[in-house]
Amino acid sequence: MTELQNKAVNTIRFLSADAVQKANSGHPGLPMGMAPVAYLLWTEHMKYSPQDPGWPDRDRFVLSAGHGSMLLYAMLHLTGYDLPLDELKRFRQLGSKTPGHPEYGVAPGIETTTGPLGQGFATGVGMAMAADHLAATYNRASYPMVDHAIYAIVSDGDLMEGISSEAASLAGHLQLGRLIYIYDDNHISIDGSTALAFSEDRAARFQAYGWHTVHVEDANDLQAMNQALEEAKLDPRPSLILAHSVIGYGLPTKQGTAAAHGEPPGVEELAGAKRNLGWPVEPSFLIPEDVREHFRTAGRRSNALYNDWQALRTGYARDFPDLAEEFERRQRGDLPVGWEQSLPVFEPDAKGMATRASSGKVLNAIASQLPELFGGSADLTGSNKTDIKGEPAFDHDQPGARYVHFGVREHAMGAILNGLALHGGVIPYGGTFLVFSDYMRGAIRLAALMGVRVIYVFTHDSIGLGEDGPTHQPVEHLAALRAIPNLITLRPADANEVSQAWLAALENKHAPTALALTRQAVPTIDRQRFAPAENLARGAYILADLGESEPQVILMASGSEVSLILEAGETLAKEGMPVRLVSFPSWELFKLQPASYQATVLPPAITARVAIEAGVTMGWERWVGSQGAVLGIDRFGESAPYEEIYTDLGLTAAHVVEQAKSLLAK
Amino acid sequence: MTELQNKAVNTIRFLSADAVQKANSGHPGLPMGMAPVAYLLWTEHMKYSPQDPGWPDRDRFVLSAGHGSMLLYAMLHLTGYDLPLDELKRFRQLGSKTPGHPEYGVAPGIETTTGPLGQGFATGVGMAMAADHLAATYNRASYPMVDHAIYAIVSDGDLMEGISSEAASLAGHLQLGRLIYIYDDNHISIDGSTALAFSEDRAARFQAYGWHTVHVEDANDLQAMNQALEEAKLDPRPSLILAHSVIGYGLPTKQGTAAAHGEPPGVEELAGAKRNLGWPVEPSFLIPEDVREHFRTAGRRSNALYNDWQALRTGYARDFPDLAEEFERRQRGDLPVGWEQSLPVFEPDAKGMATRASSGKVLNAIASQLPELFGGSADLTGSNKTDIKGEPAFDHDQPGARYVHFGVREHAMGAILNGLALHGGVIPYGGTFLVFSDYMRGAIRLAALMGVRVIYVFTHDSIGLGEDGPTHQPVEHLAALRAIPNLITLRPADANEVSQAWLAALENKHAPTALALTRQAVPTIDRQRFAPAENLARGAYILADLGESEPQVILMASGSEVSLILEAGETLAKEGMPVRLVSFPSWELFKLQPASYQATVLPPAITARVAIEAGVTMGWERWVGSQGAVLGIDRFGESAPYEEIYTDLGLTAAHVVEQAKSLLAK
Repeated sequence: MTELQNKAVNTIRFLSADAVQKANSGHPGLPMGMAPVAYLLWTEHMKYSPQDPGWPDRDRFVLSAGHGSMLLYAMLHLTGYDLPLDELKRFRQLGSKTPGHPEYGVAPGIETTTGPLGQGFATGVGMAMAADHLAATYNRASYPMVDHAIYAIVSDGDLMEGISSEAASLAGHLQLGRLIYIYDDNHISIDGSTALAFSEDRAARFQAYGWHTVHVEDANDLQAMNQALEEAKLDPRPSLILAHSVIGYGLPTKQGTAAAHGEPPGVEELAGAKRNLGWPVEPSFLIPEDVREHFRTAGRRSNALYNDWQALRTGYARDFPDLAEEFERRQRGDLPVGWEQSLPVFEPDAKGMATRASSGKVLNAIASQLPELFGGSADLTGSNKTDIKGEPAFDHDQPGARYVHFGVREHAMGAILNGLALHGGVIPYGGTFLVFSDYMRGAIRLAALMGVRVIYVFTHDSIGLGEDGPTHQPVEHLAALRAIPNLITLRPADANEVSQAWLAALENKHAPTALALTRQAVPTIDRQRFAPAENLARGAYILADLGESEPQVILMASGSEVSLILEAGETLAKEGMPVRLVSFPSWELFKLQPASYQATVLPPAITARVAIEAGVTMGWERWVGSQGAVLGIDRFGESAPYEEIYTDLGLTAAHVVEQAKSLLAK
Repeated sequence: MTELQNKAVNTIRFLSADAVQKANSGHPGLPMGMAPVAYLLWTEHMKYSPQDPGWPDRDRFVLSAGHGSMLLYAMLHLTGYDLPLDELKRFRQLGSKTPGHPEYGVAPGIETTTGPLGQGFATGVGMAMAADHLAATYNRASYPMVDHAIYAIVSDGDLMEGISSEAASLAGHLQLGRLIYIYDDNHISIDGSTALAFSEDRAARFQAYGWHTVHVEDANDLQAMNQALEEAKLDPRPSLILAHSVIGYGLPTKQGTAAAHGEPPGVEELAGAKRNLGWPVEPSFLIPEDVREHFRTAGRRSNALYNDWQALRTGYARDFPDLAEEFERRQRGDLPVGWEQSLPVFEPDAKGMATRASSGKVLNAIASQLPELFGGSADLTGSNKTDIKGEPAFDHDQPGARYVHFGVREHAMGAILNGLALHGGVIPYGGTFLVFSDYMRGAIRLAALMGVRVIYVFTHDSIGLGEDGPTHQPVEHLAALRAIPNLITLRPADANEVSQAWLAALENKHAPTALALTRQAVPTIDRQRFAPAENLARGAYILADLGESEPQVILMASGSEVSLILEAGETLAKEGMPVRLVSFPSWELFKLQPASYQATVLPPAITARVAIEAGVTMGWERWVGSQGAVLGIDRFGESAPYEEIYTDLGLTAAHVVEQAKSLLAK
């Protein structure tokens, strides 16, 4: 390490430690240990543009161990991103661009939100898949439009999390050679030595997944790390560089211990570290002038590559105008003009079809118009109806294909969908049973927090799945998804609502959407008689008012239970009780409507309201009010043919009628 | 294979396939492929007692691939458990003892509910930990009271799930030699060949975890399988036997294909299989007399061991009366008489302490009275305050210890807690941040479905955790936990409610309990002035009515926000507005109260109600009613010192006062 390199590395260390100390909160250990690795990546290996952080062909960097956020903030500041030193001084303060963990969209250059361990690891896998797919689709001779790598720093915690195992197995299977992950092998976790709980042979494990692995004995050895990175770039497999580092490097009493991980070092300890490493104790946030210049030079390192790529882009637009237009459109995330014309319209049909089946039809109808649709299923393709007919499986030999067999790996699928969306150029979707949304909540939550367009195809959405029984019957899952801020949950009632649900999901550019779809057939509603399915976009809408006069009672339902209120409504109207029928596919979309629209659908004057849904009743009180009633399932389900379960649990039109009458009698 | 063995194996196959065909629903593939393995386990290897399925020293069998439930039902019936043939004929029918996936408590001999892949794998690890711990605690020379193994059949899907990777890594670390897992390596997943998505070297991966692995080329080769099982028993490491099987063995067109996995074979196909294997096509559910006798003999195989063990038990009670009494009590799951005297009482204190801190104090106060408490944290010991002072770490060299370093493996921890509870003899608890309850929902749900006593210590329960920011701040998690049927969620308001929360959790023998605890300090309420914390058991209770006359408004809150309503209540009362203050630690417990009690706390006549909680508002409408107001956080949090976030998001006493006044003005 040259003197300048040493100063540069220490600058990273102490910018990080000073910020943590000033905030009196944060994680100094990782930045101090891994500063040399970050230094090397940003000065010698990664291509990036601080002036154009969204450059499509940039290398991606993922700090999977997100608690080390100051490392990333330091690098972004030093290399010239729009992240002023003042923001580093406001680390972890209200409204700063430097929150406790890196958040996508808050500071430029943050490729993904990380912190919950394992998420970044798996998200990077999604980014690599997107890059492979887009490269296969758009690269042409002399036009390597997509030619970048995915770097990550991952921690012991990341490797212990199951999501990483899932993602690593799939990455090995797909031979995602773009992945270059550096494992901060510091032998310390929060509870103490990793020997307490983590004694597996990590290199052997990753080799078993089909990864290339290489050891670096000392993270401070720039030459060894450099060589490892070069090896990793050449190897066609994903690479894990196991770098032995010292957590909190330099701290006199805390380095190499769990105490260095997640708390401010303290003034004395920090001063001691500075003295140990030959650094001035004051001023804090010191960036020596030569170091600043060194990093700014590094920040301009890729300028030639950046300019080459812009030239490439121009030539590409000239030589492949159609491809180029599509490539650019997809990069922007815009949908092609008129694509929605391909959305199917379904004829009324009393027998109908399962909404998972209509979803499959919709997907196949729009897939040719939307080449950016890229997705699959966690080994439930036939059940989720997520396949695109004739589309082969995406894999190493066929990266241009866009159907993904994720394997039985729901959590990794969730994070991979995030990585696909974050990379850009694709709109990802993924299917599993609704009940297994539980397995991927960690990733769904991050999708919602980041506001990325991801579409979940959750089928078998209730006791309506029947015989598989309570282990597979979601009951609490609609409520649990609705609880997540910024996630749109859509439970369409029939085939035409399904069509509109895909429309809503695709137009929902800044949030993930969860589609809850039935296993069992539901009638396709006669839209001549009842309001058009386009109203789905408003979250809830009046299907019809039945009866001779103003409605006295409102019946509302989502998904498969809408057919029950249709039946109940007919009965009530026939018996002289005028009734309003409300289809309620999405609480979230309804909440977004103006109060006036909400009051039109649910007039405060009509307090007799019955909601029915094959799930827990929780939260429906908001819509039925104190005088209303909710028919739901506040217990686990049963294993039996589904019609019998519906009857057994009282989810019937007759019960709705009875409830409505009972409310009206009050 | 002898002729009788062959007949016996085919009996298992066709009992399973006939049941699936009759139900017109289910999974014939696994039972038909793995019948020889099950045959061997039940006739040659496992010790069990059909007459006393709860025999503490029985070997445990876990069908992690729960979709193959008919294999298990067939074995239970054939070996003499109280599961009549008629129940097999009612496979997957309403109210039968043979639901689609094995459910704990529904049929005797079902050790755990399985179906969601990976859960059984990880649950077995918990069972082995319990056995190791109890053996170390209670076995004495000549008295091997605890001396059993954990067998499981696991599938491709199980091995793909991250939860299994987590559990396998920990099992290898702990050298849980009791584990003998047989991997149904049939090369088929639902989407088709495992080559589509699962090409890792499974044996190498498990070796990297520290497991012993052995291949069996043909699952029908009883001799090879027998030898593998013997090897596994002798090896001190956990064992994975990779058994190459043929899914749907015998089915003329479907065997070895995904079509054999999860649907009825069809009448013709099933008849063809019977002909292929020399089996009469009719009658279905055939059990030849010699086969029946053979299995009944197998069911009596362990009688001698059983009787020996009962003799051991008697001798143990004589030679080690105190140990024996404790052992028996713990097996029953009863708490020691008077243990609750050890629960601490905390003095009023305006400064107070974090509820995670009081939880740590409570745990340490009761730990010596409750040797059955066994748990730990997913690498957040210091944060969760889950450690028992002076208690060493449970590991291979110290299995008598009862503190577990789970590593950063929340999902496996959840399932291991289930396994510990199911094994019996311990009461398990596990800690992580509340936000990471997301990572373990799959396991929490099964705990609730099974009704096992598991205690979750979820700390850092809101934006009150401050600077770590939105990735670590639970917002939707209380709602998401409350949505799960049969799970008790408890968010105590102060140290004395924490004490009572542990009491409730421990007395809650047939359901899991989630404790939501603060990172930040909360005042310890003066119980001379306000109602006793013992009221926590009722879910919600009147802390006090403040003011000169009957209350006009009700303020309610849980956890850390109770201090805000106390402050707001004082203000309102001073300003002449009489107010009721309700502490609301648990919706679930309150719902269990008689309507009369509920109406006493929340009289219908008082419609001006304000609830405040640092989480999504969803569901609080039920308690505040249509005229009420809820102050909550229907968005993600912020990274900042926590007091600033509370103010920024309007969670203040002043805002409560304002809302109350606004409601009263209506």
